[in-house]
Amino acid sequence: MNQLKLTDMLRQFFHEDIGDGDLSSELIFDAKEQGTYTLYAKEHGIFCGALIIEHGFLTYDRSLHVELLKQDGDTLQQGDVIAHVHGAIRSLLTAERVVLNLVQRLSAIATLTQIAVKQTAGTNAKICDTRKTMPGLRMLDKYAVRVGGAFNHRSGLYDAVMLKDNHIAFAGGIYAAVQHVKRKLGHTVKIEVEIETKEQLLEAVEAGADIIMFDNCTPQDIARWLPLVPAHIATEASGGITIDTIPHFAASGVQWISLGQLTHSAQAFDISARVQLKGAPY
Amino acid sequence: MNQLKLTDMLRQFFHEDIGDGDLSSELIFDAKEQGTYTLYAKEHGIFCGALIIEHGFLTYDRSLHVELLKQDGDTLQQGDVIAHVHGAIRSLLTAERVVLNLVQRLSAIATLTQIAVKQTAGTNAKICDTRKTMPGLRMLDKYAVRVGGAFNHRSGLYDAVMLKDNHIAFAGGIYAAVQHVKRKLGHTVKIEVEIETKEQLLEAVEAGADIIMFDNCTPQDIARWLPLVPAHIATEASGGITIDTIPHFAASGVQWISLGQLTHSAQAFDISARVQLKGAPY
Amino acid sequence: MNQLKLTDMLRQFFHEDIGDGDLSSELIFDAKEQGTYTLYAKEHGIFCGALIIEHGFLTYDRSLHVELLKQDGDTLQQGDVIAHVHGAIRSLLTAERVVLNLVQRLSAIATLTQIAVKQTAGTNAKICDTRKTMPGLRMLDKYAVRVGGAFNHRSGLYDAVMLKDNHIAFAGGIYAAVQHVKRKLGHTVKIEVEIETKEQLLEAVEAGADIIMFDNCTPQDIARWLPLVPAHIATEASGGITIDTIPHFAASGVQWISLGQLTHSAQAFDISARVQLKGAPY
Amino acid sequence: MNQLKLTDMLRQFFHEDIGDGDLSSELIFDAKEQGTYTLYAKEHGIFCGALIIEHGFLTYDRSLHVELLKQDGDTLQQGDVIAHVHGAIRSLLTAERVVLNLVQRLSAIATLTQIAVKQTAGTNAKICDTRKTMPGLRMLDKYAVRVGGAFNHRSGLYDAVMLKDNHIAFAGGIYAAVQHVKRKLGHTVKIEVEIETKEQLLEAVEAGADIIMFDNCTPQDIARWLPLVPAHIATEASGGITIDTIPHFAASGVQWISLGQLTHSAQAFDISARVQLKGAPY
Amino acid sequence: MNQLKLTDMLRQFFHEDIGDGDLSSELIFDAKEQGTYTLYAKEHGIFCGALIIEHGFLTYDRSLHVELLKQDGDTLQQGDVIAHVHGAIRSLLTAERVVLNLVQRLSAIATLTQIAVKQTAGTNAKICDTRKTMPGLRMLDKYAVRVGGAFNHRSGLYDAVMLKDNHIAFAGGIYAAVQHVKRKLGHTVKIEVEIETKEQLLEAVEAGADIIMFDNCTPQDIARWLPLVPAHIATEASGGITIDTIPHFAASGVQWISLGQLTHSAQAFDISARVQLKGAPY
Amino acid sequence: MNQLKLTDMLRQFFHEDIGDGDLSSELIFDAKEQGTYTLYAKEHGIFCGALIIEHGFLTYDRSLHVELLKQDGDTLQQGDVIAHVHGAIRSLLTAERVVLNLVQRLSAIATLTQIAVKQTAGTNAKICDTRKTMPGLRMLDKYAVRVGGAFNHRSGLYDAVMLKDNHIAFAGGIYAAVQHVKRKLGHTVKIEVEIETKEQLLEAVEAGADIIMFDNCTPQDIARWLPLVPAHIATEASGGITIDTIPHFAASGVQWISLGQLTHSAQAFDISARVQLKGAPY
Repeated sequence: MNQLKLTDMLRQFFHEDIGDGDLSSELIFDAKEQGTYTLYAKEHGIFCGALIIEHGFLTYDRSLHVELLKQDGDTLQQGDVIAHVHGAIRSLLTAERVVLNLVQRLSAIATLTQIAVKQTAGTNAKICDTRKTMPGLRMLDKYAVRVGGAFNHRSGLYDAVMLKDNHIAFAGGIYAAVQHVKRKLGHTVKIEVEIETKEQLLEAVEAGADIIMFDNCTPQDIARWLPLVPAHIATEASGGITIDTIPHFAASGVQWISLGQLTHSAQAFDISARVQLKGAPY
Repeated sequence: MNQLKLTDMLRQFFHEDIGDGDLSSELIFDAKEQGTYTLYAKEHGIFCGALIIEHGFLTYDRSLHVELLKQDGDTLQQGDVIAHVHGAIRSLLTAERVVLNLVQRLSAIATLTQIAVKQTAGTNAKICDTRKTMPGLRMLDKYAVRVGGAFNHRSGLYDAVMLKDNHIAFAGGIYAAVQHVKRKLGHTVKIEVEIETKEQLLEAVEAGADIIMFDNCTPQDIARWLPLVPAHIATEASGGITIDTIPHFAASGVQWISLGQLTHSAQAFDISARVQLKGAPY
Repeated sequence: MNQLKLTDMLRQFFHEDIGDGDLSSELIFDAKEQGTYTLYAKEHGIFCGALIIEHGFLTYDRSLHVELLKQDGDTLQQGDVIAHVHGAIRSLLTAERVVLNLVQRLSAIATLTQIAVKQTAGTNAKICDTRKTMPGLRMLDKYAVRVGGAFNHRSGLYDAVMLKDNHIAFAGGIYAAVQHVKRKLGHTVKIEVEIETKEQLLEAVEAGADIIMFDNCTPQDIARWLPLVPAHIATEASGGITIDTIPHFAASGVQWISLGQLTHSAQAFDISARVQLKGAPY
Repeated sequence: MNQLKLTDMLRQFFHEDIGDGDLSSELIFDAKEQGTYTLYAKEHGIFCGALIIEHGFLTYDRSLHVELLKQDGDTLQQGDVIAHVHGAIRSLLTAERVVLNLVQRLSAIATLTQIAVKQTAGTNAKICDTRKTMPGLRMLDKYAVRVGGAFNHRSGLYDAVMLKDNHIAFAGGIYAAVQHVKRKLGHTVKIEVEIETKEQLLEAVEAGADIIMFDNCTPQDIARWLPLVPAHIATEASGGITIDTIPHFAASGVQWISLGQLTHSAQAFDISARVQLKGAPY
Repeated sequence: MNQLKLTDMLRQFFHEDIGDGDLSSELIFDAKEQGTYTLYAKEHGIFCGALIIEHGFLTYDRSLHVELLKQDGDTLQQGDVIAHVHGAIRSLLTAERVVLNLVQRLSAIATLTQIAVKQTAGTNAKICDTRKTMPGLRMLDKYAVRVGGAFNHRSGLYDAVMLKDNHIAFAGGIYAAVQHVKRKLGHTVKIEVEIETKEQLLEAVEAGADIIMFDNCTPQDIARWLPLVPAHIATEASGGITIDTIPHFAASGVQWISLGQLTHSAQAFDISARVQLKGAPY
Repeated sequence: MNQLKLTDMLRQFFHEDIGDGDLSSELIFDAKEQGTYTLYAKEHGIFCGALIIEHGFLTYDRSLHVELLKQDGDTLQQGDVIAHVHGAIRSLLTAERVVLNLVQRLSAIATLTQIAVKQTAGTNAKICDTRKTMPGLRMLDKYAVRVGGAFNHRSGLYDAVMLKDNHIAFAGGIYAAVQHVKRKLGHTVKIEVEIETKEQLLEAVEAGADIIMFDNCTPQDIARWLPLVPAHIATEASGGITIDTIPHFAASGVQWISLGQLTHSAQAFDISARVQLKGAPY
C-alpha cells in the first residue's frame, strides 16, 4: 500500500468529519489532558486496519502513541483488545470516528472475504475482488481483500484489458477484438475476455487471451469447457456468484472466482472503544 | 447538496478508476462511435442518484446527453429503466463504474432507510442517521438518508455539540459540562447530552440541554422517563437499535431514533446496465 | 480549531508569498546561519495568534524553535514581547510575512471584539459575529472573535437555517416557511427567523423558531416586543449595529447582538519584529 | 489577472461558505424558481469586482446570467446599481455571500487607494502597495490597488530583491550585499535597498541598486538626499506613512510611496443586495 | 488517455507559467482584441500533441477556437502548419508557452521513437519505453511513445511485477521469488524477471515468469538462449541499448526492446508560432 | 528554492510512480528489512540534486537516513559515489525511480549549462535560461541552471515584462508600447524589449527599456549597435543561439545570452544505483 496516499486519504477524511473544529471536545477538554483510548472487538472475525489506526491517530496528532495488540489478518474474538492509543484526550476523541469507520469497514471486508475463501476448501479455486469498491476507498478495500486471504482483480481501467460484450460486438468478434488490442498493447498488460458460449471460448483461446472469464455460466458448463483451455491461460468465473454458490463454482475446476459482494456489500464489523481519562473535573 | 463539491468528488473518483486511461475502451472504440447506455433496476426499492448520473456522466464528458426517467425517491421495480445516456460509447463505458458504484450505494441507503421509516408507522417517531458514514462520502450518504424519508443527525464534529460520558466525567457531571459549554458556545448550535439514568436525565433538563439522547436505554425506561422532559427539548434514542427493534422504540414516545446501520451496513442495491451500439465492426 | 486545516492554510499562504523562492534571503544568507526573531506589540490590545506563530514557523521549517511569551486573549501593551523564534535566519525571514499578516489581523479582530464586548457591560447581551469574514480565513476570523470574548454565529450556510425575507416570501409567510423546513430538517439544527414587525414576531413564535432575529429594528421596538418571546427562544438584534450603538441594543434586553464589522472592517493591529543575527559578514 | 487562478479561489471560498449545502435555500426553494439579484452601492467610492461578480456567480452555477452596469474603476454613488444577476433563486442566494464579501473588500481597497492617490495631487509621486495583503487574497488585493489608480510593489519574495537591515548587516554592508546578490541574480530582477542615512544612500548608489527605499526617513531628509540619486535609480519612501502624511512625502520629490494600510486596513465598502422573486408560495 | 487528468495537468502548468497574471499581455492588449495563432514545424518529424493544443487553449479560455491541420502520428515537414487557434489575442499569447513546451516535447519523443522503431525493420521485435519519464509527465510521455509507433512498458510500480537482482537475492533465488509473489498476486498482473545468465533463464522459465528480461545481455547470448523460452512467455532485452544498437538486438529474435532514451533524453522538436493581429494601435 | 513546494512536487511524483503500491517490493520484502542504497556517477559532469535526494527519500519515508558525499555544483567523475541512503530496503526501492529521474535531469542541465558557461571564457557575457522548461519542473530546472553557473531569466509571465513583436505592433511601436506599460507598471518590475533593427534599438533606448533583447541578430550587428546603449540598460542576445555559437555572441560584447536548449534539450545524465541488502532469504 502506498503510505503517502494513505496519509492523504486520512487527511481528507478528517477534514470531512472535523470541519473547522470539534466543538464538543475543544470546549470541554484542556489541550494537555491525557488519556488512553482502547479499541476492542464486539464480534468474531478478521482484523484489518493496523495501518489505519497507526497512521490515523498520528496523522491527526503526531504526539499520540499507538500500541497495537493485533496485526492485520489476526482472528478477533468478542472482547479482544485491538489497540491502545495514549495521549491528549482531545485528539483521541476528535480523531476516533474516522479511524473507527475505516477499521469497521476493512475488518468487515476481511471477515467476509475469509468466509468466501473457506468456501473453496478442498479445491484449487481462488477468490478475487472486482472494481465494485467504495468510490475513494479502492486502495483500502482491495487491501482488506488481501488481508482476508483472497486476491485482487485489476485495480482499475488502467492496469488490465477486459473485453466485454460491447467491445467484442463493435470489433466484430472476439478474435478480431483481441488481435486489435494486441496491435497496440504492451507486453506487461494482460487481456481478459468475457465469454458466454463454447464457441466464444474457443475463439478466445485461439485469439491468445491471457484470461478467460466465464460470464454468468453455470458450474456445469464451466466444468465441461475447461479442458479446452490451455494451461497457460487463466480461467475465471464471474457474475452473480454469492458466498453460498462458491463451492459449486470452486468444484468446477475454474481457477479464479470473482465477487463484487466482498466490497459492495460488506456490513460494518462491530468494534467499540472506551476512553480512560487521567484528568480532573473543572 | 453542494454541487461544486459533488463535481470535485466525482473527479476524484474518476481519477481513482481511470488512472492514466481506460485501456480496453480506448484500444477498441473510435472516439466518435455513438451509443446509448441504459440503467435499470434489478430489484425493488427506492431510487437515489439522479444527480450522480447527471453530473457523473457530464463531468467526465460534457458532450453526453442524460435522460432521467426516475427522480430521487421514486420507487423502483425490477426491470424499471432509470436513465438513458446518449453519446460517445467510449465515454459511456469509461465513466460507468463510478456512477454505478455510487448509485448502487445511495439507492441501497435510501431503500434501507425507507424500511426503517416504515417501522415507525403509527407513531410520531422520526428516523435519523449518525456519523457512521463511509469516509469521503458523508455528503452523499446523508443525502440518501433524506431521500429515503428520514433525517440527518449532525454532519460532523463541527455543527452540533454532543456531550458523551467522557466529556461529562472530565467536566464533573452533566450540569457542569453543559454550563461550561454554554459559556463559550454561540446560540446557533444545539447541545445534545447522552444520558443513561433518570438522575442524568433530570440533570440534563436542569442544565438546559437542547436534546437528550437516551443511550442504550430500553424502550420501557424511555417511556417512563419521557414525561420528565419539557416540550421544547428534543428526545432521541440511540445505541444498538436495529430495523427490527425500531417499533419498540418508536412506541416509547421518543421523538428521534438514530441508526448507524443505515449508512455503515447498507448492501449495494442491484442496478444493471446495457449498452446499445450504433457502430460497425472494424 | 482544526489544526490539520490550519496547517493546510498556512502552506497555501506560504506558497502565495514565497513562490519559487525568497530571492533576497537565499542569496544573502548561508543556510545554517542562526538568529532570533522577536515579535512585539506596537499598540495596546488583545493578542490572538499563538497557534499561527507556532504552526506557521514550524510548518515552514520544522527545525525552528518557538518560544511564546503571550497566550491568546492576553492584553498587550506597546512594547510587549509576544514571542521569540530561534533558528535558521533564512527561514525566519522567509516565513515572517505570512505569520505577521495573520497575527496582525487576528489580534485586530480580537481587540475590536473586546471593545464591542465592553459596550455590553451591565447587561446580559452577548456579542456575536456574522458570515462577513475574509474569504479563505473564516475559521481563523471566527476563532479571533472567540478570543476577543464574543461568540460565533453560524459557520456557514451548512450549520444553521436562517430564513430571510426572500425565503419567507416564497414560502408564503413565516409560519409556512418554518413548518416547511421542519418537515425536512433534523433535530440538531436550529432555525432562525428574521422579523421586522410585531406580527412577524408573533408568527415566528407560533411557528416554533429557535431564534428570532430583530432585523433593522430599533432598540425601542425590540424592548417592547421581547416580552412576547418565550424563554426557550433566543433573541438576536442585527443590521447596521455599530460599536457605538451597541449599548442601546444591549439595554433593550435582547440576548445576542451580531456585528459584521468585527470581521469585515478590522484594521491591522500593529505588531513589529526585529531579528538578531549570530552570524558574521562575508 | 490569472482567471484560472481566480476560478480556483472562488471554488475554495464557496466550499468554505457552503460546506455540504445551503440548508435554508435548499429546503425552501424549488430548484427551478427564477429571480433577479441586484447589487447596489450604499456609499460613495470606487467600484472593484466586476470579475468577481461575473466569475463568482458563473462558477457556482453556469446557467446564471450576469448583467454588469458598472466597470472596475467606476465611481459609485449611494444607490447606484452595480449589477443584476438573473437565474435560479436558489443559486443566487447560495452564492451571494462569497461574492459580496469579496466585492466589498476590493471596492474598499480601490476606494481607499484613490483617496491616497489624490493626496499626491500636484506632484509626480506615485502610490504603491506592499506585501501586507490578506493571506490567500494577494492577487485580488493587488488588483484592487491598480483599479484604485495606484501601483503594485513586488508580488512576493520571488519577484524582486529587497535588502533590509538584516541582510545588510550579515553581508557586511550595503555595497557588499548588493555585489553579492549581483553575482547570482539574473538581469530581469530588480534590487531594492533600504537605507536610513545619507551614508547608506551613497553606498547604495555606488553599489548599483535599482531602487532605493528611504525607510522611516522624514520628508525633509528625503528631499535633501534625493539630488544624490542618479536619474535611472528609482526612489521610494516607506515606513509609517499614512493617508494624512502622504502630501509631505509626495512633496519631497520621491517617486514612489508605499502604504501597507491600503490592504491591511481597508474597511468593507458598503454594498447591499435585493432579490426579486418570480415564484409563487407553496 | 484520461482527459480529466490531462485538464488537471494543464491547469497546473498554466499556474506555473502565469502566476498572478501575464504582465505584458494584460498591459498591452484590450481583452477583446482578436487574432490568429499559427503553429508550424521547423524540422522534419512526427507530430504529437493534438490533444494538448486543443485542451490547452480551451482550458485556458473556453472561447478560443482550435483548428487542427495535423493529427497525432502525422509526418511533419519543415514549414508545415500544425494548427490555427482563433480568438482573444491576450489569451493566445498567455497560453502559448505551456502548449508549445509540451508539444515540442511530445513530438520529440514521437519522432525519436519512430527512428527507434525503424531500426527494427525486417524483424518482429517491438520497441517499448521504461519508467524513465519526466516526473509529472508520465501519462503524456507514454502517449507520445505510442504515437511514435512503439509500445508502453508498465505504467508504474503498481501495474506489473518486476523482479530485479535485489528482490531475487533477498527471496533466495528466482524460483523462490516468483513462487513467493504468486502466492499473493492476482491473475491480472504479469510477473517479469530480470536474468543475466542461462541458469537464471531456466529458473525463470521453470518458475512460471510471464516475461523474461535479458538484462545487459549481448545479442549473441540472447539469440543463443531464446530457444529455451516457451512460446507463451514474452522476452525483452534491456540495459544500455541505444538507437544504434537496436538492430543487433532486434536481429537476436527477442520480442521486446526497452529504451529509457526515448523519454529521458528526447530533445525538443522545433515548432514555431506566429500571431496575426486583427487590431489597431492605441 | 521553496522547500515546501519541493515537498509538494515530490509527493505528486511519488503518487505518479507508486499509485496504490509497489507490487514487487511489497510482495518480496519484509517491512523491516534494512539495506543501503548507493548512487554513483556513470559519466563526467556537474552534480545537481542534493535536495532531491535528501527530501525525496525523507518525504517518502521519514525513517531513512541520507548521507550525501557530493554537494550541488561538485564535479563528478565516472564511478564517484554521490550518496548513500540507509534504511528499509522496501522504501529505498520504492522511492528510487522518482529520485533518479530528477537527479539525472538536473545534473544534465547543470552539466550542459557549465559547458555553455565555459564558451563565454574571456568575455563578460553571462548565460541565462528561458521559459522553455519542462512543464511542472520550472523551479527545479531553473535551480539546475544556477548550479551550472549560469543565471535565470524571468520565472514566468508574472515577474517581468517582455514586449515582443505582437505587443509592439498592436501598441503602435516600441515607444508607444513601453510608455503604455509604464503608465501601469510598478517600479519593481523590469521591461525588456525585443528589437531586430537599429531603429528599434534607438526607439527602445529612448522609451526607457530596462533590457534590450537582440532577437535573432548577428553578433556583428550586435557589436555595431551596442555603443548606442547607455550603461544602465542591460543587453541580451537571444534566438537560435547554440552551444557552438555562444563564443561569437559572447565576443560581441553583449551582457546576456539566453538559451532554451539548456532546459528543453538536456539529455539525462547517467547515474546508477546499487543496493546492498542486510537481509536473509525466506
